[in-house]
Amino acid sequence: MAASTEGPFCIADFETLAKPKLSKAVYDFIQTGANDCVTLRDNITAFRKYALRPRMLSNVSDVNLTTTIQGQQVDSPVGISPVSYGKMVHPDGELALVRACQESGTCYIRSTHATRSLDELARAAPTGVKWYQLFLFKDRNTTLRLVRQAEDSGYSALVLTVDTAVTGHRVADLNNQFKLAPHIRLVDIESDKAVREEYSRLEAETGIGAMHYLNAQVFDTSITWEDAKWLKQNTRLPVIIKGILTAEDARIAITYGMDGIVVSNHGGRQLDGVMAAIDALPDVVKVVNGRCEVYMDGGLRTGVDVLKALALGARAVFVGRPAMWSLAYNGQSGVRRMLQIFRDELKIAMMLAGVDSVKHLPENLVVKNCGCCSRL
Amino acid sequence: MAASTEGPFCIADFETLAKPKLSKAVYDFIQTGANDCVTLRDNITAFRKYALRPRMLSNVSDVNLTTTIQGQQVDSPVGISPVSYGKMVHPDGELALVRACQESGTCYIRSTHATRSLDELARAAPTGVKWYQLFLFKDRNTTLRLVRQAEDSGYSALVLTVDTAVTGHRVADLNNQFKLAPHIRLVDIESDKAVREEYSRLEAETGIGAMHYLNAQVFDTSITWEDAKWLKQNTRLPVIIKGILTAEDARIAITYGMDGIVVSNHGGRQLDGVMAAIDALPDVVKVVNGRCEVYMDGGLRTGVDVLKALALGARAVFVGRPAMWSLAYNGQSGVRRMLQIFRDELKIAMMLAGVDSVKHLPENLVVKNCGCCSRL
Amino acid sequence: MAASTEGPFCIADFETLAKPKLSKAVYDFIQTGANDCVTLRDNITAFRKYALRPRMLSNVSDVNLTTTIQGQQVDSPVGISPVSYGKMVHPDGELALVRACQESGTCYIRSTHATRSLDELARAAPTGVKWYQLFLFKDRNTTLRLVRQAEDSGYSALVLTVDTAVTGHRVADLNNQFKLAPHIRLVDIESDKAVREEYSRLEAETGIGAMHYLNAQVFDTSITWEDAKWLKQNTRLPVIIKGILTAEDARIAITYGMDGIVVSNHGGRQLDGVMAAIDALPDVVKVVNGRCEVYMDGGLRTGVDVLKALALGARAVFVGRPAMWSLAYNGQSGVRRMLQIFRDELKIAMMLAGVDSVKHLPENLVVKNCGCCSRL
Amino acid sequence: MAASTEGPFCIADFETLAKPKLSKAVYDFIQTGANDCVTLRDNITAFRKYALRPRMLSNVSDVNLTTTIQGQQVDSPVGISPVSYGKMVHPDGELALVRACQESGTCYIRSTHATRSLDELARAAPTGVKWYQLFLFKDRNTTLRLVRQAEDSGYSALVLTVDTAVTGHRVADLNNQFKLAPHIRLVDIESDKAVREEYSRLEAETGIGAMHYLNAQVFDTSITWEDAKWLKQNTRLPVIIKGILTAEDARIAITYGMDGIVVSNHGGRQLDGVMAAIDALPDVVKVVNGRCEVYMDGGLRTGVDVLKALALGARAVFVGRPAMWSLAYNGQSGVRRMLQIFRDELKIAMMLAGVDSVKHLPENLVVKNCGCCSRL
Ligand SMILES: Cc1cc2nc3c(=O)[nH]c(=O)nc-3n(C[C@H](O)[C@H](O)[C@H](O)COP(=O)(O)O)c2cc1C
Ligand SMILES: Cc1cc2nc3c(=O)[nH]c(=O)nc-3n(C[C@H](O)[C@H](O)[C@H](O)COP(=O)(O)O)c2cc1C
Ligand SMILES: Cc1cc2nc3c(=O)[nH]c(=O)nc-3n(C[C@H](O)[C@H](O)[C@H](O)COP(=O)(O)O)c2cc1C
Ligand SMILES: Cc1cc2nc3c(=O)[nH]c(=O)nc-3n(C[C@H](O)[C@H](O)[C@H](O)COP(=O)(O)O)c2cc1C
Repeated sequence: MAASTEGPFCIADFETLAKPKLSKAVYDFIQTGANDCVTLRDNITAFRKYALRPRMLSNVSDVNLTTTIQGQQVDSPVGISPVSYGKMVHPDGELALVRACQESGTCYIRSTHATRSLDELARAAPTGVKWYQLFLFKDRNTTLRLVRQAEDSGYSALVLTVDTAVTGHRVADLNNQFKLAPHIRLVDIESDKAVREEYSRLEAETGIGAMHYLNAQVFDTSITWEDAKWLKQNTRLPVIIKGILTAEDARIAITYGMDGIVVSNHGGRQLDGVMAAIDALPDVVKVVNGRCEVYMDGGLRTGVDVLKALALGARAVFVGRPAMWSLAYNGQSGVRRMLQIFRDELKIAMMLAGVDSVKHLPENLVVKNCGCCSRL
Repeated sequence: MAASTEGPFCIADFETLAKPKLSKAVYDFIQTGANDCVTLRDNITAFRKYALRPRMLSNVSDVNLTTTIQGQQVDSPVGISPVSYGKMVHPDGELALVRACQESGTCYIRSTHATRSLDELARAAPTGVKWYQLFLFKDRNTTLRLVRQAEDSGYSALVLTVDTAVTGHRVADLNNQFKLAPHIRLVDIESDKAVREEYSRLEAETGIGAMHYLNAQVFDTSITWEDAKWLKQNTRLPVIIKGILTAEDARIAITYGMDGIVVSNHGGRQLDGVMAAIDALPDVVKVVNGRCEVYMDGGLRTGVDVLKALALGARAVFVGRPAMWSLAYNGQSGVRRMLQIFRDELKIAMMLAGVDSVKHLPENLVVKNCGCCSRL
Repeated sequence: MAASTEGPFCIADFETLAKPKLSKAVYDFIQTGANDCVTLRDNITAFRKYALRPRMLSNVSDVNLTTTIQGQQVDSPVGISPVSYGKMVHPDGELALVRACQESGTCYIRSTHATRSLDELARAAPTGVKWYQLFLFKDRNTTLRLVRQAEDSGYSALVLTVDTAVTGHRVADLNNQFKLAPHIRLVDIESDKAVREEYSRLEAETGIGAMHYLNAQVFDTSITWEDAKWLKQNTRLPVIIKGILTAEDARIAITYGMDGIVVSNHGGRQLDGVMAAIDALPDVVKVVNGRCEVYMDGGLRTGVDVLKALALGARAVFVGRPAMWSLAYNGQSGVRRMLQIFRDELKIAMMLAGVDSVKHLPENLVVKNCGCCSRL
Repeated sequence: MAASTEGPFCIADFETLAKPKLSKAVYDFIQTGANDCVTLRDNITAFRKYALRPRMLSNVSDVNLTTTIQGQQVDSPVGISPVSYGKMVHPDGELALVRACQESGTCYIRSTHATRSLDELARAAPTGVKWYQLFLFKDRNTTLRLVRQAEDSGYSALVLTVDTAVTGHRVADLNNQFKLAPHIRLVDIESDKAVREEYSRLEAETGIGAMHYLNAQVFDTSITWEDAKWLKQNTRLPVIIKGILTAEDARIAITYGMDGIVVSNHGGRQLDGVMAAIDALPDVVKVVNGRCEVYMDGGLRTGVDVLKALALGARAVFVGRPAMWSLAYNGQSGVRRMLQIFRDELKIAMMLAGVDSVKHLPENLVVKNCGCCSRL
């Protein structure tokens, strides 16, 4: 690990570097959480409740960050969460994200709200591990059409986000009257002609209102586990459920034959006041008990955070805002650097903790630290 | 829920918007708590100790906020707590409150310290759910006269406030020498001629002293459960006890045949250093065990807070300061907007938590989160 | 309780009001604690961990603050802790303290470090309850002489302070090179001629060094429980031990026949990093189990704090800094006002908690509130 | 203890006094921790979780700070941790450290990264207790040569640091492009000719990169317990393991015949997110159960902290940053003063806690204080 002599050197710096590149409304859109942003902050600070218990004098000269997810090999357990509106922060949009992930040998999850088509991204990073994150369209045919595109162009898993029955109450966006610039086109949504026309009309009229309203029109907010089953039956790809926070729901996911779970509270953007993502992870891992792979996202900002999440049972983790910040800051190479920092920090953390592979973590590597005073 | 494009968008904003409309003394009077204001702050922050455990993929296309309280239907479980001196913050005074409640299909509790008569308010909102909050007069005949008025003009329950044996030690009011402007008349108190004269005399002389002193003269500070029983025996309306914080008192309330309990610490204005209202709720709910309806007020500022209170067993909740702020900010339409935000936020929170009715909340919807570090 | 219309209205205000009357060094001397001042702050904030559980609708029209301590009646359970150097903050010195206590019907504890003689104070407040706080002189005859004076002039108990084997490490005083002005004479210490001469010599030379050094010379830092026994055997007055923090020591105090215990950490001025006084109280109360009276001091700033201390088993409480601040602010009448505020606030707190006598407090009036988040 | 009348009077002051003497990069290098510096802060604040339970009226006229470590007598249980690059902060470098330790009768641990040779330091403080802290060189002969020098010149123990398989991720150093000035020579590393040449070359080229890179080249990052055993077999000195945080590793250390353990997280500079050093101590002490001596370092800033560490089972403690600060501030006499303050504060704390010897501490002298609220 010959350290680069040029910054940034930590994930937090990307936030700072992104700020001058973005309008206030866009910056806030990325940053904010729902309501009082309690969960947003919790996602980050909850990691401090878990103390690593490092072991010494185990040989760590050969540390291995390679693992498999859904049977595919990745060189790092830190991938990119689905994030919307890539072009909003950088002209390359999702192209930069998918390419940086391919270069870094890690997984990219493309959002239904992407601004570059499934196909275009697949061509840009043909050998990268790519998953497709879905919201179900009311018109199931649109969904099926997109699923087929994903299958055909080399996406290797579907990620069904289930925590968005309605858009979270994000006060900053409302105050900013956040709306997309006209050139930001949501290619999946607009792949349906009728939808495209309705969307353009409303957008012109009401801005953010249109967006939320249309979301409510286009996507199915009344989906149930039967719909997850339907999706599973209608694709040859593994289906992963994103947005689970309870053991109860994890158990149901297993019953319905799901192939993976992303423990997530959507980065604190949906329901405020829920458990921090890292706090929700152990229960899910326990009930799943190896029957499918469990991932998590939310609040990861250092390699130390990543190691804690892995130690608590996540097979891999994903990051949302760091992707947006690094994209805004410097496109593909910014994103690559961000992923590199996570790798480097994770590797250092593993060496110092006496861990030589992300696949085999010792028991008791973390302990819940209730000594809250020590944080003050 | 087509989101309005005009603010305010959250309850906290009303506080900011009210400030320039009020004198410092009046603003402080609303804001303050007793002594060190520890309970005042606790009421709000204690909600963060409870984490919601949202369930996914239950159909939430049809979310129902309707419930009944004391047998009457309301369209929202968020009503308005009894607050004094309506005209002090807006010329319409309580008229704006009761009308906004009627429009919003929710419950209005009129204070004994109101500045508009029982009758006037009843006429202004004939179909709204209205309750009458009582302090017992030393002269029980005055009380009976007012109870009769309430019964006759359509109030549907009596709320006996029991946490005011003496006014709390509110330092800000003492420093501000808070007193009412001459045109603010406490119509219930002054409905008795002798009292009216004495009150006017003292008020002219000593300001706030007069108010407290007269309160001590006019109201009965030595009431006991026998008086609650007397009230119950002397009205055909249900009697609700407001200001209970312990399981012991809740048990007694049941024994005395009370019809409802408002778990409340008077918004931290009476005895400082008591449990936060939300922390007191579960014990009361448990001991009551369905034998009467349990409500709560204190510190609710988002729909997420409301959902937590309902999940912990409150049948409905009430808000005090938000009513005063929204009234000060923009009269009836301000209050309506405030109630609307609570509705909207609650609905979003329910959808995201997988809850479709305020009447049937799943077990384990909240968990006490002792992970205090995560808040820092 | 006809509220006064003139301030101050809370104890914290005396701190502010005292500041402009004092030099920085003197102000700091009063304010500071040892080392990092952790215990100093804890003494105050620890009260927040205990939540009052108020009971409603018990008749509180007749609230009684009268109690007895060591068999003598006091009108308020809030007395004044021994504090040194009265004349340093006000020309009247301890005269103002003892007179205000007599007027308020509460107990005054005179320090060995007082600047007015036992006799002078006794004559100034002949009917007040007065105790004499002792440090043991190396020369036990000096001690015996002072004890006789105390007995003869009407002091009714001896308070042996046991937490001062050495002066605490108070960084502020060291930085300020704190020393007494020449006119401040420590009358007890100087009652011995040899000591007086040595003290004057050293004082002139080295300031604070002299004070600490002389303390080490004059007082016996090697005392043990046998010395407490000796004191008890050599006086007809009850002997109270001040500065106990553990159940173990309380048990020994009982064995040695002590008549009372003041749970105290010397206001955080001696050993930093110990339990807050209020946190130490319950263990002592439990082990003592009524075999002697238990008092406490440290961090009491409101009537609510007082009620919590009484609920946790203190028979009476004492205040140190509030005495110094109010003395500095306005002499005797300042001190009287300070004691009055404690009385008023305590009375209000009792009424609101449903408590009618400081002598009979209900079980479960306080609960330890581990919900730390709610304070943030 | 005739208090000095000249400051500084507490350890924290040395930090302030050192700042103007150092470049930002050097100041930061000393100050910083890894990643988010969570453990750095925890090391200090965690002491607040432990409350001392002082005992009164035990005779403390004769307090003894003398103890033995590895069979040698020291006059104070507070020694100096191994710290690198002494000349970077003061021209005397480690000479000042070792001399001040000898004067103070306490233990000095010389780092492999020292800027003065083993020999030079030994000559400067021939009678002082000196230990030699080792990183193992890839070329074991270099290590053996240095061990022989240490043995021959009077070092009495070897301290094998085991928490540095790689340098921690210290963001401040990366941002500052921290590098050593040319005149700072790492005498142990450069004692090997080949290494010296390679080091000089790289240093000229890449600054900090070189340092880390070379560290990786020169030192063995793949060492295991077998290497600790090898060291033990190749020296007549006791071998102490520095950097243990878990009971598991402590148990192994015992199995491998180690003579002592320093519970340490390297002052929060290596793996962030681990337990505070003081929090890790009790488990290690328990499992070791007297089979070797246990020491600790990390976050000690007052005599109160020292007493807590001793009470939790440390035989002696060490301080790192205070050594660097006091050295920067005023060379040998600064360091002597720093050690003196620790002694004085510890002595005062012991007297006030009723403890008369650092060798015999009563049971229950500290209690874990979970009352976190009291710190706010
Ligand atoms: C700007 C932004 C847009 C997002 N868009 C989506 C999305 O389209 N689909 C989705 O499932 N999650 C979306 N998320 C949530 C992320 O996938 C992820 O759960 C979250 O960002 C993780 O938290 P972190 O930002 O703290 O890493 C979005 C998050 C952000 C910040
Ligand atoms: C300005 C003000 C006046 C109040 N007046 C009354 C009253 O007359 N009667 C009563 O029972 N409670 C009164 N309360 C208490 C409220 O009914 C309610 O318990 C409290 O405000 C709830 O807390 P919240 O303000 O945090 O919502 C008053 C509260 C405020 C803020
Ligand atoms: C300025 C000052 C002087 C004190 N002098 C004495 C003293 O002479 N003897 C004694 O036993 N305690 C002395 N104390 C301690 C007090 O008796 C008492 O324990 C402490 O002040 C209580 O804490 P509080 O200041 O928070 O009320 C002194 C305290 C202060 C603040
Ligand atoms: C500037 C600096 C240099 C250090 N160099 C070394 C070293 O060379 N070898 C070592 O074992 N520890 C080293 N440490 C760690 C210390 O030995 C010690 O574990 C740590 O400083 C204790 O924490 P404290 O600084 O809070 O007292 C260093 C620490 C600092 C601050």
